[in-house]
Amino acid sequence: MSIKTIAILMPGDMGHGCAIAFRENGFRTVTNLSERSERTKALSAKAGLEDLGSFEEVAKQSDIVLSILPPENALDQGRRFAAAMIAAGSTPPYVDCNAVSPAKTREIAAEIDQAGALYIDGGIIGSNPVNEKGGTRLYVSGSDTAAIRELDGRGMVVRDIGDEIGRASGLKMVYASATKGTFSLHAAVLTTAHAMGLTEEYISELSESRPAMFSAMENMVPRIPLDAGRWLGEMNEIAATFKEACVTSKFHEGAAEIMELAHRTPISHETRETVDTSRTLIEALDMYVAARKGVKDAAD
Amino acid sequence: MSIKTIAILMPGDMGHGCAIAFRENGFRTVTNLSERSERTKALSAKAGLEDLGSFEEVAKQSDIVLSILPPENALDQGRRFAAAMIAAGSTPPYVDCNAVSPAKTREIAAEIDQAGALYIDGGIIGSNPVNEKGGTRLYVSGSDTAAIRELDGRGMVVRDIGDEIGRASGLKMVYASATKGTFSLHAAVLTTAHAMGLTEEYISELSESRPAMFSAMENMVPRIPLDAGRWLGEMNEIAATFKEACVTSKFHEGAAEIMELAHRTPISHETRETVDTSRTLIEALDMYVAARKGVKDAAD
Repeated sequence: MSIKTIAILMPGDMGHGCAIAFRENGFRTVTNLSERSERTKALSAKAGLEDLGSFEEVAKQSDIVLSILPPENALDQGRRFAAAMIAAGSTPPYVDCNAVSPAKTREIAAEIDQAGALYIDGGIIGSNPVNEKGGTRLYVSGSDTAAIRELDGRGMVVRDIGDEIGRASGLKMVYASATKGTFSLHAAVLTTAHAMGLTEEYISELSESRPAMFSAMENMVPRIPLDAGRWLGEMNEIAATFKEACVTSKFHEGAAEIMELAHRTPISHETRETVDTSRTLIEALDMYVAARKGVKDAAD
Repeated sequence: MSIKTIAILMPGDMGHGCAIAFRENGFRTVTNLSERSERTKALSAKAGLEDLGSFEEVAKQSDIVLSILPPENALDQGRRFAAAMIAAGSTPPYVDCNAVSPAKTREIAAEIDQAGALYIDGGIIGSNPVNEKGGTRLYVSGSDTAAIRELDGRGMVVRDIGDEIGRASGLKMVYASATKGTFSLHAAVLTTAHAMGLTEEYISELSESRPAMFSAMENMVPRIPLDAGRWLGEMNEIAATFKEACVTSKFHEGAAEIMELAHRTPISHETRETVDTSRTLIEALDMYVAARKGVKDAAD
């Protein structure tokens, strides 16, 4: 089979970027925007995604379906699309590209299996393919990944890492556990230092003995709030993955708490386009410390 | 007052290194080795520390006392030395240099205050002064730090960061929370990847997209077990510090679990002198994965 039409469910920051990259490589891209937000509709229009108006129509017209959304919605999306495939009598391969645990991807696979469609486990590493100039990696696993491998080098890099459903999701979990785990830890450390009135001494010591660590903190901590709302679910999926592997889940339970804290700062109302890039690290830390208020009041 | 004799309680890896550095700068160094291990006695002899046989004698003959030991022993050491000062009728300034929370250092201060001696809060950043060629930082805080500041540039760097007991310990906690927090997180991540059979794929992706992170993992993860037993208490003190600041304590509760895991590997029986430096990262990960056994059996 040769892929011509790719469905993207649902086109947010990552999804609309994938759609742009696929269109530039000659594919038709489609979606279903019923009940979606104005922001999603705007991103979708920007990416040139066709709104087919229903999942049934998407099932009928697509050669492959990519689910790209916040992890907490992945299972529900799988269920709804499975029902739509049954109703439409059309079963294109379904690739779950979401940041979910191996256990969760197996749950979604069971829904898709029941509809009689092929399920491919996927995990995206890297940012939006537009920013990465097509270098974003889509790791996939499953019994038959031929359909998704047709897209390799045509908008994204596609890498097959084995037959087992759960491997691609597992790799995504492990990868994000270190990167997002580290900057969440940094935010916790700086918030604690700032709450204790030790920011100046800490930054001074760190700039001297660990300049690379300080630079990483300075770059990332003020930007976490922009995505913290959507990363919260991902931290919960990572905690579940570690628990399943009999390794402590507490680092990522802590990271989830930091995402909640960051999401309560006023910075979380900004976007990549509107973020105040002149804000200093100290100004951001003032906001993190203030956002502890609910936590602190409960403790007092 | 001019310091001539410095007491070091108790001379382990860090303490004996400090003693060597102070002796090279012309100070007399003393301790009490009663009830101490053969290893401590050997390190003490290597450092040229005089064993005065009792804490009372140490109280009488010292111009300043530095407590340098695992954090879980710091309060008991403070209590015992306070009693010895009362019995000896001699009250040299007492500097707690241990990795303890601000709340814990205030508890120790209360013991020393009762004996009528001056308490100085301290926190050591950097490794053994012999390795650091005198550049190890001893941060101190308290109402009167003049005595310890006499040692600045004479074996260690001494930096006063304020009047309040808890500031120096707080800075140590924050500093160690990022450094030891990061490599504990790395160990958790790699153990999870290895348990899931994804090590090769993860290392390959990481080497490409985050080579500095991979290099940090490769250097440190196989070495954590050498010190994990003594770092466990430090992770608990950091968790308490974060909780007191109303920031999530879970990162360092997780780090404590990793220290326990690392301490169960066969590598923990090695020392800096006997460590197998030819061991590969994969061989170390085999040991981490196997050490989960107790945890895994309980979960199965």
